[in-house]
Amino acid sequence: MKVSVLFSGGKDSSLSALLLEPFFEVELVTCNFGLLPTGEIAAKTAEELHFPHRILSLEREILEKAYEMILKEGFPKSAINYIHERAVETLALDPAVKLIADGTRRDDRVPVLSISQVRSIEDRLGVQYSCPLKGYGKKVVDSLVGCYLNVEQGPSESTQKADYETELRELIRQRQGEEKIKELFPVHFQSHVLSRKKRL
Amino acid sequence: MKVSVLFSGGKDSSLSALLLEPFFEVELVTCNFGLLPTGEIAAKTAEELHFPHRILSLEREILEKAYEMILKEGFPKSAINYIHERAVETLALDPAVKLIADGTRRDDRVPVLSISQVRSIEDRLGVQYSCPLKGYGKKVVDSLVGCYLNVEQGPSESTQKADYETELRELIRQRQGEEKIKELFPVHFQSHVLSRKKRL
Repeated sequence: MKVSVLFSGGKDSSLSALLLEPFFEVELVTCNFGLLPTGEIAAKTAEELHFPHRILSLEREILEKAYEMILKEGFPKSAINYIHERAVETLALDPAVKLIADGTRRDDRVPVLSISQVRSIEDRLGVQYSCPLKGYGKKVVDSLVGCYLNVEQGPSESTQKADYETELRELIRQRQGEEKIKELFPVHFQSHVLSRKKRL
Repeated sequence: MKVSVLFSGGKDSSLSALLLEPFFEVELVTCNFGLLPTGEIAAKTAEELHFPHRILSLEREILEKAYEMILKEGFPKSAINYIHERAVETLALDPAVKLIADGTRRDDRVPVLSISQVRSIEDRLGVQYSCPLKGYGKKVVDSLVGCYLNVEQGPSESTQKADYETELRELIRQRQGEEKIKELFPVHFQSHVLSRKKRL
């Protein structure tokens, strides 16, 4: 069975792909709005991980709506969740896609699809959605990452990532300036995967 | 890293072990109250799956309390959840056990530990608890089972299983008779794993 893994180049989506690898034919898919070359950054990481990779263009209006949401709310939660839901839906519309996976962990809050959002997508669009890390807490995930991946970590503004946040931050930067980004996004550390530590 | 998988001989706990196998040192653990030889039934299945297996004796008072709960409530949910929580706790008290897993799936309702029960066990007892199937819906689980396991299915009263229900049913049979079992347990189909379809 083929699985399409939503891939940011971070440790969670990378580890998800590794956990699926012995059982599925894995392809990595990175979403992009055409604002920054995030797809190319992720493609490089995917190559290091030895997985096939493709870029999925998302409608620019999804980013515009997310931009409105974050400005209105003052924090990124709903905007990021909205992009994620629309990304899963866009991928699900591809007739070749039957199984979608992402890097959601047990303790994640953003982005997370609710069980009713998941069931709606599965029923409406005829795909299955899965989260290989959903049954694992932080310590086990960190331990697996430590075993299998070489990772660099840094604050989110300086780490090369291809997640939904990257282009949303860029749009805010273009329209509102650097200061607005600091106001809207809490400082948090992001990971960027460099390579595999060892072959499975 | 070693993982101790709570094992009933059913398809969910068997598939959990298979998903963990490429990344962990797996041992299967079957809980038993000394009422029926469920550990031996599970040991046979574990051998077919080529995993090491051991039997964990649970305090008889856990079964007695579960018996009281099911008679009081009239259905098995709380009783089975109670046994499961106490089984995870008992296993977690073994100093050699650092990581526990079970076969809980995304859509399962019984037995399921709540996130606060999980955090309490992890914090109090210094173990990690994980559910490899938690991020997967029924269709994906069924598809993986179909790929990797030979399974026989049947109504729960005639299928050889080593789950918590088996000995609870036996205690009710001994004290209240066959009719009471039919009254308390809804008819549902259970699976018993026979062997692997192919080596991973």
